[in-house]
Amino acid sequence: MITLDHHPSGRHFLQIPGPSPVPDRLLRALSLPTIDHRGPEFAALGKRVLSGMQQVFGTQHPVVIYPASGTGAWEAALVNTLSPGDAVLMYETGHFASLWQKMARRLGLVPEFLARPGTCAATGLPLSWRHGVDAALIGERLRADPGHRIKAVCVVHNETSTGVTSDIAAVRAAIDAAGHPALLMVDTISGLASADYRHDEWGVDVSVSGSQKGLMLPPGISFNALSPKALEASRHAGCAKAFWAWDEIVEMNRTGYWPYTPNTNLLYALSESLDLLLTQGLPAVFARHQRWAAGVRAAVQAWGLPIQCADPAVCSPVLTGVVTPAGVDADALRALIHRRFDLSLGTGLGKVKGRMFRIGHLGDCNDLTLMAALSGVEMGLRLAGVPLAGSGVQAAMDHFAGHPAPDGPAAG
Amino acid sequence: MITLDHHPSGRHFLQIPGPSPVPDRLLRALSLPTIDHRGPEFAALGKRVLSGMQQVFGTQHPVVIYPASGTGAWEAALVNTLSPGDAVLMYETGHFASLWQKMARRLGLVPEFLARPGTCAATGLPLSWRHGVDAALIGERLRADPGHRIKAVCVVHNETSTGVTSDIAAVRAAIDAAGHPALLMVDTISGLASADYRHDEWGVDVSVSGSQKGLMLPPGISFNALSPKALEASRHAGCAKAFWAWDEIVEMNRTGYWPYTPNTNLLYALSESLDLLLTQGLPAVFARHQRWAAGVRAAVQAWGLPIQCADPAVCSPVLTGVVTPAGVDADALRALIHRRFDLSLGTGLGKVKGRMFRIGHLGDCNDLTLMAALSGVEMGLRLAGVPLAGSGVQAAMDHFAGHPAPDGPAAG
Amino acid sequence: MITLDHHPSGRHFLQIPGPSPVPDRLLRALSLPTIDHRGPEFAALGKRVLSGMQQVFGTQHPVVIYPASGTGAWEAALVNTLSPGDAVLMYETGHFASLWQKMARRLGLVPEFLARPGTCAATGLPLSWRHGVDAALIGERLRADPGHRIKAVCVVHNETSTGVTSDIAAVRAAIDAAGHPALLMVDTISGLASADYRHDEWGVDVSVSGSQKGLMLPPGISFNALSPKALEASRHAGCAKAFWAWDEIVEMNRTGYWPYTPNTNLLYALSESLDLLLTQGLPAVFARHQRWAAGVRAAVQAWGLPIQCADPAVCSPVLTGVVTPAGVDADALRALIHRRFDLSLGTGLGKVKGRMFRIGHLGDCNDLTLMAALSGVEMGLRLAGVPLAGSGVQAAMDHFAGHPAPDGPAAG
Amino acid sequence: MITLDHHPSGRHFLQIPGPSPVPDRLLRALSLPTIDHRGPEFAALGKRVLSGMQQVFGTQHPVVIYPASGTGAWEAALVNTLSPGDAVLMYETGHFASLWQKMARRLGLVPEFLARPGTCAATGLPLSWRHGVDAALIGERLRADPGHRIKAVCVVHNETSTGVTSDIAAVRAAIDAAGHPALLMVDTISGLASADYRHDEWGVDVSVSGSQKGLMLPPGISFNALSPKALEASRHAGCAKAFWAWDEIVEMNRTGYWPYTPNTNLLYALSESLDLLLTQGLPAVFARHQRWAAGVRAAVQAWGLPIQCADPAVCSPVLTGVVTPAGVDADALRALIHRRFDLSLGTGLGKVKGRMFRIGHLGDCNDLTLMAALSGVEMGLRLAGVPLAGSGVQAAMDHFAGHPAPDGPAAG
Repeated sequence: MITLDHHPSGRHFLQIPGPSPVPDRLLRALSLPTIDHRGPEFAALGKRVLSGMQQVFGTQHPVVIYPASGTGAWEAALVNTLSPGDAVLMYETGHFASLWQKMARRLGLVPEFLARPGTCAATGLPLSWRHGVDAALIGERLRADPGHRIKAVCVVHNETSTGVTSDIAAVRAAIDAAGHPALLMVDTISGLASADYRHDEWGVDVSVSGSQKGLMLPPGISFNALSPKALEASRHAGCAKAFWAWDEIVEMNRTGYWPYTPNTNLLYALSESLDLLLTQGLPAVFARHQRWAAGVRAAVQAWGLPIQCADPAVCSPVLTGVVTPAGVDADALRALIHRRFDLSLGTGLGKVKGRMFRIGHLGDCNDLTLMAALSGVEMGLRLAGVPLAGSGVQAAMDHFAGHPAPDGPAAG
Repeated sequence: MITLDHHPSGRHFLQIPGPSPVPDRLLRALSLPTIDHRGPEFAALGKRVLSGMQQVFGTQHPVVIYPASGTGAWEAALVNTLSPGDAVLMYETGHFASLWQKMARRLGLVPEFLARPGTCAATGLPLSWRHGVDAALIGERLRADPGHRIKAVCVVHNETSTGVTSDIAAVRAAIDAAGHPALLMVDTISGLASADYRHDEWGVDVSVSGSQKGLMLPPGISFNALSPKALEASRHAGCAKAFWAWDEIVEMNRTGYWPYTPNTNLLYALSESLDLLLTQGLPAVFARHQRWAAGVRAAVQAWGLPIQCADPAVCSPVLTGVVTPAGVDADALRALIHRRFDLSLGTGLGKVKGRMFRIGHLGDCNDLTLMAALSGVEMGLRLAGVPLAGSGVQAAMDHFAGHPAPDGPAAG
Repeated sequence: MITLDHHPSGRHFLQIPGPSPVPDRLLRALSLPTIDHRGPEFAALGKRVLSGMQQVFGTQHPVVIYPASGTGAWEAALVNTLSPGDAVLMYETGHFASLWQKMARRLGLVPEFLARPGTCAATGLPLSWRHGVDAALIGERLRADPGHRIKAVCVVHNETSTGVTSDIAAVRAAIDAAGHPALLMVDTISGLASADYRHDEWGVDVSVSGSQKGLMLPPGISFNALSPKALEASRHAGCAKAFWAWDEIVEMNRTGYWPYTPNTNLLYALSESLDLLLTQGLPAVFARHQRWAAGVRAAVQAWGLPIQCADPAVCSPVLTGVVTPAGVDADALRALIHRRFDLSLGTGLGKVKGRMFRIGHLGDCNDLTLMAALSGVEMGLRLAGVPLAGSGVQAAMDHFAGHPAPDGPAAG
Repeated sequence: MITLDHHPSGRHFLQIPGPSPVPDRLLRALSLPTIDHRGPEFAALGKRVLSGMQQVFGTQHPVVIYPASGTGAWEAALVNTLSPGDAVLMYETGHFASLWQKMARRLGLVPEFLARPGTCAATGLPLSWRHGVDAALIGERLRADPGHRIKAVCVVHNETSTGVTSDIAAVRAAIDAAGHPALLMVDTISGLASADYRHDEWGVDVSVSGSQKGLMLPPGISFNALSPKALEASRHAGCAKAFWAWDEIVEMNRTGYWPYTPNTNLLYALSESLDLLLTQGLPAVFARHQRWAAGVRAAVQAWGLPIQCADPAVCSPVLTGVVTPAGVDADALRALIHRRFDLSLGTGLGKVKGRMFRIGHLGDCNDLTLMAALSGVEMGLRLAGVPLAGSGVQAAMDHFAGHPAPDGPAAG
């Protein structure tokens, strides 16, 4: 096992926007002996995690748990509800929205990719990657589709590549205002269980999520939360599907079992995660992330560096994108910080590659974990010769000291 | 975590044919902290497991590792190589062969399902479920397809539902003798790393496997091993695919990374499993399972119960199917044994439901684990009032005492 | 860590009479991060384990927990209550009674070592090692000490070297009947939490125990349970002491802390063990061991080998001593069984070295664990050429199948 | 286990001077199944840890490993070498030196307690608690003992209560210069494996240490390293002893076993620790701690607070004592920091209670762990209204960024 252990002294600081730091309590649950997935104990586990996930999504309707990582749940959302050649309205908020769109095309659908036009004068980055979904653009496009050729609207709740969230309720309202029957499908892979999310209340038809972000598990489990309308659509959808097909899973889940072998040990960790999150209460969890995010943004502002999210109203509570000055290779900076300080930061993806890095503030963290990470970034910026307006570490200390968490270290 | 722990005294005996008992060493590896799947340490891990899996499959060609359970790898084999409407020749050896055939149909392919005809006089069970693949039947069918409408032949190496193996080299020879270009696709989900398997030498085009059997991991990882011919076919195959698509994965695996988030913690366990298996050597591992299987069969024969596999030449080293006498509900027996002795046995699936049970002798076992399991079965049979010809436990002790493992308890 | 892992396939069967098999649940607790032994969380842990241990000992008075293995708690009992030159009446029930007596001498006390006289005709073993304490002998000796020169009577509750228990209440009655003020000190290192024990009700002054038997922890923690009379004696006892001194520990324990660094991680496991045992209830735990012991004795009797304990009324529920026929070296037999079947049995100690071996039936076991162990012993006996009257394995199966545990596998 | 888990979000920062943060790798080793302490695998483990500990102490002579916490090893050093009434010269460097002296008295020895006289004008603290051992004082006292009534000189290598080290070679030289035959006994409980230590080269007769500091284990194991002269003394020493007696342990250790039950699972962790430390090399380990200590001292100096150690030449690489301004209760400050930032700091002990706190920089740390801790302290100082000269966090970042570790994050 020695080859698996890369950190001879001290724990690695994993401040990427997922996989998030896994609580020891979940790692211990993960290592429980595997049981018979058709035995009596398993049914109790199955029912417990299915019901807990309904609470996390905020839904009364079925949640499907896949023994597969998050990308699979994107595919599941599409192939269960759509038919080859169907038009899908997608919205470019960043790299993951782009990948989902690319996947739709690959699966034989016809995505149309909306984006806020223009380029940011200050940073040269596409404006669409610095803002959330513009629901008005979506409404406008749907009104121009009186024949209802568009079968689904797909948006990302929390863009992991940029640190920008989107107002999902506004998208729903725009669809409704346009009187359009398209399904609303939302990727909340990195949002769920860190940022407020309400599948039923917001009128989402399919929510897509994964295990390795707010749920704090290792990767390997993903989710679809369904609406009755999505279930109805799935009965007529023409895309070929077997592994991802909702029908047999939803049917068999009534008894706590799965039609094929589920991911038993990750379900142990999921059960433990649900215990932990639901005992603390989701509002407390969301508040914790908002507080951390504000502290991190205070640091970035003190350094004088642009935050990738240009709209303060939709800055992500999960991660913060930091734009490096022209001429500073963000990936070289990340490599330096990793080598010197055993700290992992998220890379810039796609159109912002090399231009920004991402600080994750999700998962098993607390104030001092983030102070450690910010110290590592500040030392790295200085070592890389980046001119700083001031000390972000000092600003973050001011923030954390000045804003006590409502209920002590637990709320961190 | 208390709700996850169901065995107040002593360890549960998990003698189902998978998930297999996971070595503590792997459970510990599983619980290592999750790392950045795009960081430098990850590439070393990725390369190590990819290369180790090539050794286990016996191939020089790419192995694809999916962050998904085994059923997904079935789908991957089909959608990467075939086009909607393609004819596929499949062979009914039991329940899992039947499920794969059902999946092919669901994915828009046209499977033809060959089977050895007839019913066993003694047990009333279908003969096809008590024997391995009849390669001659396959050769005959292919010769009747001069237009090469059949694009692939799909067989199961070790039928987990029956405990019968099949001669894969003979299937290859039959295809070749027929001069037919069909691809050979083999499900060795429960065979790999317990029973001898040689992807390249046997001329297999796509081998399908999973983590929770001979590799002794929890479920959640699955595999496709490819041939150059399969890779070539994948370039023209018309089935829609994204998550399962080989192209991007094989390309990105060259650097030790994956195009989407891999199953990091299960890869830790896989790395540990490969260390363990390759250090012991696969021939020693195969011999160990053959020895256990012989001991278990000696017990079943002493009880006077039929072994599901009617052909001694192809009895599985992985599991043994035991047929219960008419009137004895095998599942009621299993439930009694589970309740009284904390021992899980495999259920009869599909056409043999209630008529047989399965004893797994794979994964992290030794002679005494199997003696424990056989004791539990013998006590259960007596409590259920099943008349026994003799003591299977005694026969197994004779076998294990009389046949020392080549190298001590390690080979156990 | 590879060098620490000696069992390449399957779990080792640890059926020695301690250290006992540790439940996975305790091993996981053991691996929780160490905390500040002077911080607020520690006090809660300290109070919880101290109170739980009072329940296990059956006492309202202080229990002292040492961060040291069991031998230390023997020393603590003596040096806290006695003065150099004090006479102590000890009773030879086996090897551990002899070692305690040797320790008393080494510490400057003057032990007198009572024993049932004579040698067993059938086995040639000392009778004293095949029977429990003869309380009448003790009463007689005390009546011959009108000047009360004897300051303490020391007996072993469950002789780990022989598998014989002693009637502690009878010893108390004998002391009282003699009107003698000597303290009663009892070694229940291997008895506690497996066999019925009642510190207060039986009038014990100092009970000595350890972690690695009925409490199912690894070794490293030991205990003294005190009576008010013992505490009073400790105020005037003249033996030098510091580490073992009760005074500061008992005082500081009121707040949940210790005067020096306690064994934090073993206390985690102790807390978990107490949760487990007290939730199941001690009577259920004792019944479980009695049932296992009866099954093991049925096996030994079927083999036709003498049980070390010659008095059925006091056979230990914790372990069974098995006498090998003349000419059969019990240690060579144990080595053979270890090598062939990865099963550890207890060696014969002191006067019975090479003449017997011990089967532990304590700790984290269940019926099938014991069937595994008995199978290993039976195969080993046959391989060693020991003539057997019949199959012990068969007899044990008859016993376990015929005597269901009151509440399913939990009660094992 | 839920009651054992006190940190709902993020890992606790345990920056007390021991128990130190335990590497996950050791926690995993700790949770390996317990084995037979009289079986063949155990001997290999025993020999490995005994030999590794000789390397860590820098000795060719026996090391005794006790299954007991560090206070026990103090007692062992005294009772194995001395007789009741023997005079012992001890030196007051702080609280632990005082406790050892108190223990000597309790064990019937006659300690004489030397100390540097006087009180620090600036802080009001005893000078003896701000400086290391004054070897000249010892030499002077020994020269005044021509009759060699003094049998041993006892000093503390690294005073855990103050953060001051002492020059052991100088003490040896002073004894030799005085031509005095007294034994030299050294407490290096918190020094060993973090600070340079050389048992043989420095002429130490008995070195005392424990597991929960530089070795990074949980508490529960302690050590005596012996010299031939100490062994010779032990043959005639008159203190009563049994558990602590070297003779049987040293004799039996030759075969890798112990005369009584050793602390098996902590020995697993010790084996893993030795692998880790000796692979990295002790010089690299010592350099790592010196670098951390310098960074922490830079922070304290920037705050304008006095460092407890008044002599820069002997500041501890293990911990730094920080004196709070008059009127600031150091324990109230610690409590605030614990509550707000989930960070444990060491309390002021004995004569400096409430006047100082201690920052541990030992065990499983790295630069960012220390930055986290220093951030927590700085925020706490501000919240407590302590006027600070500047930012210690800034100073520490300057130090860590400006002084790269010789070999990357490994050396931290």
